[in-house]
Amino acid sequence: MSDASSAPTSDATYGVIGLGAMGMGIARSLFASGLSVIGCDVAASARDSFEAAGGRTLSSPLALAEECSVVILVVVNAAQVDAVLFGEDGLGGLAERLAPGSLVMQCATVAPAYAMTLGERLKGMELELLDAPISGGVARAASGQLSVMASGSELAFARAESALQAMASTVHRLGGASGAGSSVKLVNQHLAGVHIAAAAEAMALGMRMGIDPQRLYEVITQSAGNSWMFENRVPHILEGNYSPLSAVDIFVKDLNLVHDTGRDLRLAMPVAASALQQFTAASGMGLGREDDAAVIKVYAATAGIGLPAANDADHDREREE
Amino acid sequence: MSDASSAPTSDATYGVIGLGAMGMGIARSLFASGLSVIGCDVAASARDSFEAAGGRTLSSPLALAEECSVVILVVVNAAQVDAVLFGEDGLGGLAERLAPGSLVMQCATVAPAYAMTLGERLKGMELELLDAPISGGVARAASGQLSVMASGSELAFARAESALQAMASTVHRLGGASGAGSSVKLVNQHLAGVHIAAAAEAMALGMRMGIDPQRLYEVITQSAGNSWMFENRVPHILEGNYSPLSAVDIFVKDLNLVHDTGRDLRLAMPVAASALQQFTAASGMGLGREDDAAVIKVYAATAGIGLPAANDADHDREREE
Repeated sequence: MSDASSAPTSDATYGVIGLGAMGMGIARSLFASGLSVIGCDVAASARDSFEAAGGRTLSSPLALAEECSVVILVVVNAAQVDAVLFGEDGLGGLAERLAPGSLVMQCATVAPAYAMTLGERLKGMELELLDAPISGGVARAASGQLSVMASGSELAFARAESALQAMASTVHRLGGASGAGSSVKLVNQHLAGVHIAAAAEAMALGMRMGIDPQRLYEVITQSAGNSWMFENRVPHILEGNYSPLSAVDIFVKDLNLVHDTGRDLRLAMPVAASALQQFTAASGMGLGREDDAAVIKVYAATAGIGLPAANDADHDREREE
Repeated sequence: MSDASSAPTSDATYGVIGLGAMGMGIARSLFASGLSVIGCDVAASARDSFEAAGGRTLSSPLALAEECSVVILVVVNAAQVDAVLFGEDGLGGLAERLAPGSLVMQCATVAPAYAMTLGERLKGMELELLDAPISGGVARAASGQLSVMASGSELAFARAESALQAMASTVHRLGGASGAGSSVKLVNQHLAGVHIAAAAEAMALGMRMGIDPQRLYEVITQSAGNSWMFENRVPHILEGNYSPLSAVDIFVKDLNLVHDTGRDLRLAMPVAASALQQFTAASGMGLGREDDAAVIKVYAATAGIGLPAANDADHDREREE
């Protein structure tokens, strides 16, 4: 583009805050694309890992402000976004130290109302927000092939362009409204959560009726009852492998965001509400950190169903929020 | 096969009972394959339609017994199966008139417990049952490309083979137990019903948040929240076209079968239960005969959401139970 202000800022330094499984993949993808990246995490082990790959790190996000004009927040929830940007207990955070015109790219699944408020607040500080929740799982984060559901100004998209190209294979561009990215992500999480709970419930029904679960999986994945989540998660049940790729508590969190949004909008969503209760029950059974397919253990516990046992084979599985 | 008793009985005469949209497609598929077929329906218009295509018809199923060694029941529910086979008010039906060794192929979605009992009852009359619920919709019924979820003895499968080849592109062979076909179909209907209600609920959430529904559909169908039903049914909502391909009341019926089965097995299924309530509410609004995607009107009515209006374009759509 001829307008320099909207050109990709590939000469910028990018701060990636949160070097968990997803943030690490993003930081390494940017680094591998030749961008200048600083990784930031409170955990020394995460910083060591990024440094071992050749990256620079800092332990405090505040220190990023001196060098970075783009900061990418890959944290768990809105509370962590707030803590990074505005400080614990309001004692001052990264936002007030960033140079005017800097871009904040927020990748967490948050309430759309929060994303809208955040956009207004940052605008008042002369900062741009790209509301940019991510999905695709750890493997695709590592290979720079995430999906991003993004909204923000044209300037925000332009500033984010090089990072988006490095980290994502699909960028859904959802217009200028802060909150649009988070709204679409929330709809996706509604469906993903309901479909996982429904997959568990339906498999429990089949097993309780005496149907071989492996055969049932084969038939349903060829039938109108199939879903992306049924196809992806039921193998965990068949393998008896509940090591967490995406955990039960992620859907306790995300379906509560759906619930809270529905409450505020006065939109009754009984299907999502019942799925939320099943994930809540699973978490109550102590399964919050197991794979989200462990929601089937609620049905096993309440209806006396024997689930397939684990075997010793190694499994390569795709993580997907 | 060398054993004559298990060879396909392509020299048999096949009675197809119920010439509705699905039964008509099956009767015509068998006829087009060169099999000897008699179509049976109480409605003269249905018989006329099959005769116009060159087929033979009868108005009473009882009269089929003289010529047919295979009868295919394509009726709505277990009550209709019972009425055909055993007579209204127990006054005698088709079953007691069929020659020993004849095959009854039942294609309705029925409770697995009913299918099991039916198999036992027919066995006591020296008749074979193929428990063979169908899916795939009207267009695939017409082109002989249904999916069949079938269980029964080897003899039952052998007797059904020519008919299955004529009417189906996919036959899921689920073993010898009467009820296995109906069990797998019930699991499929659980998921299909939940996914339609979830699709409506999620689209309502997106629209209530101000997201363009067409754009939302595009993003979700590329994301982990996708399902076969989301992809198939949401276009009806986007087109504002609720002319029935598969009706709301089909899922009131099928999710009540899920509910009743869960009650009998003491298996709590809250996700299916909440979807059932939404279809029940839609039917209570007078929408029982509209397309099942009309369940979104429950959300529109309760949350003040304006749905896309119908346009005048013709639409070709796949029907799918």
